[in-house]
Amino acid sequence: MDDSFTLAPPLTDRDSWTAAEWCPMERALDLIGTRSAMTLLREVFYGASRFDDLARRAGVTPAVASQRLRQLVENGLLERRPYQEPGQRTRYEYAVTERGLEVFPIIAALAHLGDRLPGGTGRAVELSHAGCGEPVMTEVRCAAGHVVTPADTVVSIL
Amino acid sequence: MDDSFTLAPPLTDRDSWTAAEWCPMERALDLIGTRSAMTLLREVFYGASRFDDLARRAGVTPAVASQRLRQLVENGLLERRPYQEPGQRTRYEYAVTERGLEVFPIIAALAHLGDRLPGGTGRAVELSHAGCGEPVMTEVRCAAGHVVTPADTVVSIL
Repeated sequence: MDDSFTLAPPLTDRDSWTAAEWCPMERALDLIGTRSAMTLLREVFYGASRFDDLARRAGVTPAVASQRLRQLVENGLLERRPYQEPGQRTRYEYAVTERGLEVFPIIAALAHLGDRLPGGTGRAVELSHAGCGEPVMTEVRCAAGHVVTPADTVVSIL
Repeated sequence: MDDSFTLAPPLTDRDSWTAAEWCPMERALDLIGTRSAMTLLREVFYGASRFDDLARRAGVTPAVASQRLRQLVENGLLERRPYQEPGQRTRYEYAVTERGLEVFPIIAALAHLGDRLPGGTGRAVELSHAGCGEPVMTEVRCAAGHVVTPADTVVSIL
């Protein structure tokens, strides 16, 4: 079985290029390719919004949480909203943006893969669809709705 | 709009637990949550199989490539196959396994997100479906085929 992408020109000659200069996956990894960024984003999906709650549940120090949350806001994955409790100074809470929703399939796919790796804790986590109860999975599909495998995928530079 | 998961018992009381002990996403990140692991896997999908080619195209040192490839084989994402050219010692090439195919939606989702982040190179990469030419995207769906949002997702511990 061939699991490789099909390369469109000018990528056809694989010896004439490397992805290092333009790979968008690496740009995304610069932002979310750390355990701290991903655990903070996980906690937003689990319902945390306030700084202290996010940092504690993600298991990161306040300094790391502060840096990562700022990067996620600057890159448009989270938005920061002020709130104020009586007699307290203004604080901020964080919510996922439309762009940040693109992290959901990544989290779902990582969780699915993690449950299948050797050396697990024996406590599997299941994500299921509230509407029908069926387990959820991450799929690659085209805009016409076809399920797409790597061998069915053409990579082009625009 | 609520973008949070629904938490099934015993997770319902969010103050009674943190995900640190059992999160399968973190187990997956232990394995592939590094730039070197992800760029090596990307290159397998781009068609590289031999050690030297993988290391060079992924932009990692032979020592790092050796360590990462061993971890990916041990965890069943890649398989290692011997090959021998005339007069040379036996070498190994790497191919993605069925479990390793679960990385494809992660790569596709990261690439899609990376193309939308600020500060890009202006060279967008498009993944499209060879069959119909439509762009591909990563979706979360349930086994019954429904598109699932975070708000439609129930998290359970099995």
